[in-house]
Amino acid sequence: MKIAIIGLGRMGKNMAKRLLNDGHEVWVHNRTIEKAKELEKEGAIVAEKLEDILKMDRPRIVWSMLPAGEVTDKYFEKLKDILEKDDILVDGGNSHYKKDKLRFEEFKKLGIHYVDAGISGGVWGLTRGYSTMIGGEKEIYDRMLPIIKSLAPEDGYMYCGPTGAGHFVKMVHNGIEYGLMEAYGEGFEVLKASEYGNIDMSEVSKIWNHGSVIKSWLLELIENAFKEDAELDKIQGYVEDSGEARWTVNAAIESGVSVPVISNSLFKRFQSRQEDVFSDKVVAALRNQFGGHVIYS
Amino acid sequence: MKIAIIGLGRMGKNMAKRLLNDGHEVWVHNRTIEKAKELEKEGAIVAEKLEDILKMDRPRIVWSMLPAGEVTDKYFEKLKDILEKDDILVDGGNSHYKKDKLRFEEFKKLGIHYVDAGISGGVWGLTRGYSTMIGGEKEIYDRMLPIIKSLAPEDGYMYCGPTGAGHFVKMVHNGIEYGLMEAYGEGFEVLKASEYGNIDMSEVSKIWNHGSVIKSWLLELIENAFKEDAELDKIQGYVEDSGEARWTVNAAIESGVSVPVISNSLFKRFQSRQEDVFSDKVVAALRNQFGGHVIYS
Amino acid sequence: MKIAIIGLGRMGKNMAKRLLNDGHEVWVHNRTIEKAKELEKEGAIVAEKLEDILKMDRPRIVWSMLPAGEVTDKYFEKLKDILEKDDILVDGGNSHYKKDKLRFEEFKKLGIHYVDAGISGGVWGLTRGYSTMIGGEKEIYDRMLPIIKSLAPEDGYMYCGPTGAGHFVKMVHNGIEYGLMEAYGEGFEVLKASEYGNIDMSEVSKIWNHGSVIKSWLLELIENAFKEDAELDKIQGYVEDSGEARWTVNAAIESGVSVPVISNSLFKRFQSRQEDVFSDKVVAALRNQFGGHVIYS
Amino acid sequence: MKIAIIGLGRMGKNMAKRLLNDGHEVWVHNRTIEKAKELEKEGAIVAEKLEDILKMDRPRIVWSMLPAGEVTDKYFEKLKDILEKDDILVDGGNSHYKKDKLRFEEFKKLGIHYVDAGISGGVWGLTRGYSTMIGGEKEIYDRMLPIIKSLAPEDGYMYCGPTGAGHFVKMVHNGIEYGLMEAYGEGFEVLKASEYGNIDMSEVSKIWNHGSVIKSWLLELIENAFKEDAELDKIQGYVEDSGEARWTVNAAIESGVSVPVISNSLFKRFQSRQEDVFSDKVVAALRNQFGGHVIYS
Repeated sequence: MKIAIIGLGRMGKNMAKRLLNDGHEVWVHNRTIEKAKELEKEGAIVAEKLEDILKMDRPRIVWSMLPAGEVTDKYFEKLKDILEKDDILVDGGNSHYKKDKLRFEEFKKLGIHYVDAGISGGVWGLTRGYSTMIGGEKEIYDRMLPIIKSLAPEDGYMYCGPTGAGHFVKMVHNGIEYGLMEAYGEGFEVLKASEYGNIDMSEVSKIWNHGSVIKSWLLELIENAFKEDAELDKIQGYVEDSGEARWTVNAAIESGVSVPVISNSLFKRFQSRQEDVFSDKVVAALRNQFGGHVIYS
Repeated sequence: MKIAIIGLGRMGKNMAKRLLNDGHEVWVHNRTIEKAKELEKEGAIVAEKLEDILKMDRPRIVWSMLPAGEVTDKYFEKLKDILEKDDILVDGGNSHYKKDKLRFEEFKKLGIHYVDAGISGGVWGLTRGYSTMIGGEKEIYDRMLPIIKSLAPEDGYMYCGPTGAGHFVKMVHNGIEYGLMEAYGEGFEVLKASEYGNIDMSEVSKIWNHGSVIKSWLLELIENAFKEDAELDKIQGYVEDSGEARWTVNAAIESGVSVPVISNSLFKRFQSRQEDVFSDKVVAALRNQFGGHVIYS
Repeated sequence: MKIAIIGLGRMGKNMAKRLLNDGHEVWVHNRTIEKAKELEKEGAIVAEKLEDILKMDRPRIVWSMLPAGEVTDKYFEKLKDILEKDDILVDGGNSHYKKDKLRFEEFKKLGIHYVDAGISGGVWGLTRGYSTMIGGEKEIYDRMLPIIKSLAPEDGYMYCGPTGAGHFVKMVHNGIEYGLMEAYGEGFEVLKASEYGNIDMSEVSKIWNHGSVIKSWLLELIENAFKEDAELDKIQGYVEDSGEARWTVNAAIESGVSVPVISNSLFKRFQSRQEDVFSDKVVAALRNQFGGHVIYS
Repeated sequence: MKIAIIGLGRMGKNMAKRLLNDGHEVWVHNRTIEKAKELEKEGAIVAEKLEDILKMDRPRIVWSMLPAGEVTDKYFEKLKDILEKDDILVDGGNSHYKKDKLRFEEFKKLGIHYVDAGISGGVWGLTRGYSTMIGGEKEIYDRMLPIIKSLAPEDGYMYCGPTGAGHFVKMVHNGIEYGLMEAYGEGFEVLKASEYGNIDMSEVSKIWNHGSVIKSWLLELIENAFKEDAELDKIQGYVEDSGEARWTVNAAIESGVSVPVISNSLFKRFQSRQEDVFSDKVVAALRNQFGGHVIYS
């Protein structure tokens, strides 16, 4: 099939490669054109300007792997002028499912099919394939199947439901991911802080990955991490969050669902980035007021 | 009545004063004897050596306000040799209720009445009186009532039940206290971090203390704190914990009771004292492994 | 001063009374007009139809105590047609602060001054006054001061800042309230579940309210509740939530603020209303899959 | 090698089979002797009375798979009289690591080597092998290696450190397990409660298990569970806990480690088993006191 990939970051670049490997005709566009040029050597066709994708045969599939938010918004405004009736526009970034609904309607007015795609796989997706979650029109999903099958491993793709479903399922996936990571993190910290704390953590990860209930791909990655840096001395406990866990908590609250684990995983990340937490200052001030306790300043 | 107070820290000293003001004969003992000497001017009788309390008329009430843990343990071992049959020994520190049970039995063998007393009031207790929670034998509580009534405000004292009950009720009190403080802290941080964050926090505390549902003594102290230091710039968000909230969570777990608020208040304090949290390092390492995310080091 | 109160529920009715007691001319309107009629006896002027408030002298102050959400939205649409230039419209319900901003702009176009007011005090406000938090234009706040001073106790009112500030401060207030209530609840449950659980909880509340650090108005109400029903046998552990704590958590997440206590208080309420929690079913199913553990069905 | 297995529940029985399959001489004992008899057909030697294990050649390895707690305590008391100098006693149940230390010293006085073994694998261990974590004397671990290698998969066993280390590592493993399970549970509940909730959950699990970051053995089991019962209608959201997560939280608190995810996973289980939560009753009573809110009874 023919497809254009817009946005050649870590994810987009590798997805383009995977599609090229599977024999698709892949057009690529990126703001800094060098990244596109690199893929030219591997067989991709470079669209120097965004509007160059018009040179593709119709109907076109344009798959955006741009960062969610302003960048995507800006490009999609341009694409409203560039794309033509019956073209398919896929947002493979982590946009909010409610935004998908607005976009779907806007593009529908122009006769363009908007598809939301949740993609997981990280830097390993190139070789292992990407777990692919699609929302939008079922007929469009069917039409895109050859592309999707090339991106995903066998059994790793799904039509999730109407517009927003792909990003919603991916969002929940990320919420779960936060909880899993924090659970492992807490466990290793309890072990580390104990009298048995000088144990070889990479060995512990390894045996848990062989025969135990908690074995997982994440735990294999933890094993790697401890192998590379036994005490994690080179790593700061500073953790970014990318939005999906926030939205998962918002969605949970909207539905009246209790999510203590996902929310607390998120809050731990917030705190990991704060120097001097205001709520803690209030508590410290209070202790001084009623108990004459020492204040550290 | 006649009473000896052992341990003249913030709490013990003020309790001695309160009892002197109410006309009791108060013997005082402290490791650094200067603190006892200060009280001599206010009418107290100084026991230079611990065994000097034997000069009191029998049966004696000896009330310990020593710090819980090793210090109390050490003194109580000595008191086993010093105290005599029918004497009353009161532990007014924050000892664990299970330890009370062991001690009660040990002193019982010597004919000595062991009483556990939970005391709340902080630096304000001198003028306002101390909330006083007593566990042990009901007859002994009744015998001590004149002392208890002098220490506590009207309606501020209670026979809580058999040995351990006084410290258990005090322990739960402190667990609640942690939750309350953190709730206020979080609220003020949300306000601070918002677009309305430059509001006068001391004013906010004041109006909430007049007519609102969340008015409390703690909130009055918060009002004071913000009045003294509007941005809490002089206070570090470093919060100690003194054990009772830990025990409250342990007791909850033993009974199968869900305490997300008390436990998370405690965990926030733990984190306020940590520089580079190991669990956060694990999560940061993981993000790098699967997503190639930047590591801060 | 002259003022119209729209919406005569628990809060609105008592606020009207309080204003009447202080000598204001109070117009009242309510969907079921009987509630308005009751106030007529106390001196209020009944606006049978909403547009009857036009009979008031200009410029008018119209204070809505309608339930936030659809009801308020509907009435405010009507008021756009009824109110005139320079009139003041106050929303005293618990609307979202972001909605305030939209409304402020809409009414501004019509020359009408929109004010957001957060009101706390519950059923006790009639006698004690309502903690009153105002957002909007400072000049309008100043113009309304006689009304505000009648509603609030001394020191119980505040100009919080530009539009939305009143409702934001009130929202945070309610978020704190959730945390405080849950902290007390957890403490009493730990006590209840312990070996000392047959203690008189109303007595415990009372002594904590005399001299202890955790004394508060909420704890006085708990004392009342235990006095009326020692085991709370007549009360089901089913707790509604009214939206503000949800918004507080959302606002916290938007600002990257960690709020484990407020969020977990909210989640406890969600769970209190659920019969068979889906996440728990997933966990139970899992335990059966890997451990052959019994499933309850 | 020669080994006796005491306690032939789900775990013990399958471990005996695995050892028999690998050519070891396996003695078996169980309170209800029928379970032992079943294994006789597969080559095991039945010790009808506990003391019959004395017929084994010395030095003996006796591996207990009895339930932790009273049952194990009782049997171990008997074994103090039965076992002889240089024998090895392994506790493969989930005993507390602090208990291991006491037992190690007691048996050491008798010249018996006490070993603590954490075993994970559930009903799948028979075919896949058990993740095996050993604490105690390194020389004894080395002596037992042929047995351990038969029980565990390649790379699935480890000498964890001095006495208690095996059970401590296993305990932390279970604490992590609670967090992981709850994280998945919460995610699926958020999905279920959403507008996309009629999605095929077993399909979702499947695609997440192919190429996504959160793939794991637990998620494969979830996939199975949803395949068997799409809505989990046959499963009640009632979840037992077996102690290790409680101990993990206790150990965390003892070390001052923040574990919001593990603790909240545990608390969710507590709540899943409660009908009418007392803390929720307190909150409901409070809402009625200050707001006149409806009480459900």
